Amino acid sequence: MNANLISNYHGITRNALQEVLAVARGELVADYIIDNVAILDLINGGTFPGPIVIKGKTIAGIGPEYCDAPALRRIDAQNAVAVPGFIDAHLHIESSMMTPVTFESATLPRGLTTLVCDPHEIVNVMGEAGFEWFVRCAEKSQQNQYIQVSSCVPALAGSDINGAEFPLSAMEKWRAHPLVTGLGEMMDYPGVIKGDDAILAKLDAFRHLTLDGHCPGVSGKALNAYIAAGIENCHESHTLAEGREKLAAGMALMIREGSAARNLNALAPLISEFSSPQCMLCTDDRNPWEIAHEGHIDALIRRLINQHNVPLHVAYRVASWSPARHFGFKHLGLIAPGKQADIVLLRDAHRVDVQSVFVKGKPVCGQLLQANEAARLNQSRPPLGNTVQRAMVAAEELTLRLASGARYRAIEVIPNELITRAREYQWSENAFEREDICYIAVLERYGHQTPAALGLLMGFGLRDGALASTVSHDSHNLVVIGRNPVDMACAVNQVIDDGGGLCVAQRGEVVSHLPLPIAGLMSTQTADALAQQIDSLKAACRACGVMLDEPFIQMGFLSLPVIPALKLTSQGLFDGERFCFTGLAVDE
Amino acid sequence: MNANLISNYHGITRNALQEVLAVARGELVADYIIDNVAILDLINGGTFPGPIVIKGKTIAGIGPEYCDAPALRRIDAQNAVAVPGFIDAHLHIESSMMTPVTFESATLPRGLTTLVCDPHEIVNVMGEAGFEWFVRCAEKSQQNQYIQVSSCVPALAGSDINGAEFPLSAMEKWRAHPLVTGLGEMMDYPGVIKGDDAILAKLDAFRHLTLDGHCPGVSGKALNAYIAAGIENCHESHTLAEGREKLAAGMALMIREGSAARNLNALAPLISEFSSPQCMLCTDDRNPWEIAHEGHIDALIRRLINQHNVPLHVAYRVASWSPARHFGFKHLGLIAPGKQADIVLLRDAHRVDVQSVFVKGKPVCGQLLQANEAARLNQSRPPLGNTVQRAMVAAEELTLRLASGARYRAIEVIPNELITRAREYQWSENAFEREDICYIAVLERYGHQTPAALGLLMGFGLRDGALASTVSHDSHNLVVIGRNPVDMACAVNQVIDDGGGLCVAQRGEVVSHLPLPIAGLMSTQTADALAQQIDSLKAACRACGVMLDEPFIQMGFLSLPVIPALKLTSQGLFDGERFCFTGLAVDE
Repeated sequence: MNANLISNYHGITRNALQEVLAVARGELVADYIIDNVAILDLINGGTFPGPIVIKGKTIAGIGPEYCDAPALRRIDAQNAVAVPGFIDAHLHIESSMMTPVTFESATLPRGLTTLVCDPHEIVNVMGEAGFEWFVRCAEKSQQNQYIQVSSCVPALAGSDINGAEFPLSAMEKWRAHPLVTGLGEMMDYPGVIKGDDAILAKLDAFRHLTLDGHCPGVSGKALNAYIAAGIENCHESHTLAEGREKLAAGMALMIREGSAARNLNALAPLISEFSSPQCMLCTDDRNPWEIAHEGHIDALIRRLINQHNVPLHVAYRVASWSPARHFGFKHLGLIAPGKQADIVLLRDAHRVDVQSVFVKGKPVCGQLLQANEAARLNQSRPPLGNTVQRAMVAAEELTLRLASGARYRAIEVIPNELITRAREYQWSENAFEREDICYIAVLERYGHQTPAALGLLMGFGLRDGALASTVSHDSHNLVVIGRNPVDMACAVNQVIDDGGGLCVAQRGEVVSHLPLPIAGLMSTQTADALAQQIDSLKAACRACGVMLDEPFIQMGFLSLPVIPALKLTSQGLFDGERFCFTGLAVDE
Repeated sequence: MNANLISNYHGITRNALQEVLAVARGELVADYIIDNVAILDLINGGTFPGPIVIKGKTIAGIGPEYCDAPALRRIDAQNAVAVPGFIDAHLHIESSMMTPVTFESATLPRGLTTLVCDPHEIVNVMGEAGFEWFVRCAEKSQQNQYIQVSSCVPALAGSDINGAEFPLSAMEKWRAHPLVTGLGEMMDYPGVIKGDDAILAKLDAFRHLTLDGHCPGVSGKALNAYIAAGIENCHESHTLAEGREKLAAGMALMIREGSAARNLNALAPLISEFSSPQCMLCTDDRNPWEIAHEGHIDALIRRLINQHNVPLHVAYRVASWSPARHFGFKHLGLIAPGKQADIVLLRDAHRVDVQSVFVKGKPVCGQLLQANEAARLNQSRPPLGNTVQRAMVAAEELTLRLASGARYRAIEVIPNELITRAREYQWSENAFEREDICYIAVLERYGHQTPAALGLLMGFGLRDGALASTVSHDSHNLVVIGRNPVDMACAVNQVIDDGGGLCVAQRGEVVSHLPLPIAGLMSTQTADALAQQIDSLKAACRACGVMLDEPFIQMGFLSLPVIPALKLTSQGLFDGERFCFTGLAVDE
């Protein structure tokens, strides 16, 4: 059914197909012929000569027998190497702080012709309305934007207050949509492993599509149970052993290199010619600064080839053919007759130096995409209502009272990891034994006005000031980190005033802030403007002593209860290993 | 949809799944634990240690953490190597001359737990009634017998008279059946390449499933068109170059080793770690003698490993995981949690020495299968009506009148190939310039009583007597080869008297004959009895001077118009390259 709908969505009519066949036979004029090109052979390895013949959105033929075929437009690829368009197997577009429309302009020219996203960030904030907007954007995009139906909204029932529920009854409505490819990452792995009825009902509803997984550090019997339930992939492997165990047990390995969670170096050694059909690349959460400066999937391929000596045919396969097969995209992932003409032409295949990109049979023009970005965004009817239902706060509300001599739990940040460590420190003579412990607070922002949850954080490097954000996975409440309640309140109130966003405050004043008017998650600015704003925020963070590469992204995961070890939600300190709340004071 | 139905057919209920998960967690007693076993890792390569834990029909867990898990039955595999059950990616069970019931007893103990068959032989003879019987057999079998809906009945409209039509309206009825996996081999490749509406309508009706191909020797622009139409695989590649071109163009390669068509030696070099996900094994048409003496898919694996040095992990992958993925059998093809427990235990993985077989979680007992074979066959309600509607023939009707000095076309048989060569010879002084030319006749057997089509054959080696058969692809009319009309009529009349079957006659007497009461294609005898009968027929053929390995199978393909170069149907001599009839005399 899925494949059927997708191929219908790929949507070439009987007549269009007959025209493609006529072009393939050499009896009809092609729309494009890409000449002087070598095609990377993702099945046999090596390369074979073009040209590539395109009719409508479809590749009609490949190979030298088409050298003299008639075409409306001939493109001289100047001996470029042609590879299939890249596929991001799992991401949350919201983490780019761009709308899907802006994301397309930023990534399509880099060769990202297909993505599989789970919009669970915006769904946590505004429920089905957010999901519907993503579908509207995807239906209008040139980029193949496929959508997994968010499975865990809220991420872990009872662990936090979020903006909306997304129950099975709402999820099921989207099963038959041609751009819906399955169930989004099933983060409630304890529920799956236990065989919880409500969780299995979600799996059963989407079993005929693809069931995405999320099981960081799960192994042995628990992993066997999780996979036995039908979960097909995982993007949360952190070590070689973890990745190998999941592969051997039949799970596809999504190698993630996001802005906060970076697993490529650890997992790249698992990619071989033999394992490649079960390996894919994904970004999960990647910020606009990094997309602008490093790239997207193109950057991951570049590192596989140049840092990990993965052969070209293997590196480009895991970026295209492997995920296409995994998700049942029969029309994608290969430069071959009948496939959709999603093609990346590379000046240099080792450097992943993109010369030009074709999607759905048409050349991609980055300038044009940017030029009509505002219009397309407007057309998508973005949900712009204020989602930050929180009254201004006073420093008082963010002040943590500690008892001398008592021991307290603190969250330790691990640079470039989503997982944290649980620590304990003693408070005596108005200080902890170590200096780099600061305050963290999470404020529910959905109109309940519950008191701020307060906690302690170490390893962040903050020496002064405060950072506040409404990007706080997955409930996206208002999170703030600071050395003192005054700066914390200042940053929080600016974010509230902006209707959501990021802010750095120091000495009672706002130093830098970025409004995120869509759900408190996404900006309406262009990718370039966003990247500059992030630069300014990063500078402000460094001025406060924070040396982390991605302070806001790391802060944004300190509230996600489904990732170990210790987290703080708007409802209190949460033990992400035992999946229950715990006290701030150790003896509580 | 397909995957969904299949996984429903695999059919474990919510409760059953919850039990599997409880076993995986180690909290419930398993049905079987297979211990002292090494599992071949078809994803990473190498092996990893068992045990394998089974609950119901499903693998609940794998690996050493289950060494002490509780189980109703423990099986000591004595250090066997475990691999997934073998899959035959394309065959016509009818060619074994066994019923699907008998075929299961003959092949399941050899590790063939899954097959994908196209029942187009019986459908050509009796239409939907034959298809329905195959479905009845499949629904009752332990072996996973999947069925492709025959796409070309008759094989090539207008080229022959057959027993029944199988129009799209009839085909569509079977789309939703959980054991139906797609469209059977689309042999009318000229129709596909031309973009014929009626042919594309068949593809569109099954596009969401798998579209099987058949395009011997098709390459270049024609191949591009055939693949662009959506055809996903081909089992008709004969040379390395042909196979490589099809792989590079996105087609999956089914490496066929049947009893007449043998392509394994030519194509084995294409199998590599990298290409393995697109390579599969199939038998297409394999006779009972060979199954009994050499084996089935197990024999193909043995040769890949021992004659072509294909590494174990690659050879067993193309025999299981690769076809499972190709057809969307999410629950098959791997020894992993959640997969159906279809397992082959090997005393020696290099020799493919099968110790025991599990299917759907239960051990296979060959004796038991044979013991209740008759009962199961009876239960399947086989269609036993006489399908040979032909009056007895006189030698006269089979006598070819040739004009002295004239040149005539003759079909040249190529040993172990389905393709033939078109030759021309001169008739003078009541003889041809070469001695080994004999007569061939094809008699329509569906009640039309049209005159026998007469032709000339060379390369068969027949020096005396005649061979007759109702196994004559794909229309299965009555074909006879002989040195003289008297022996030819004798053999034909015995076959008519038997209600279909095989016969060798010499000097006016029947030497050996095998009745095939089901559709003139299949015997109701046991596999062993059949193998003995074939021995006697082969001996009789040798006594007539025929040195071909498989005289009846080669004779059986001399009427198949969709395979080049020259064929004889009940309606006359057919040019299998230009796809039209041609005269026997060259100047006609």
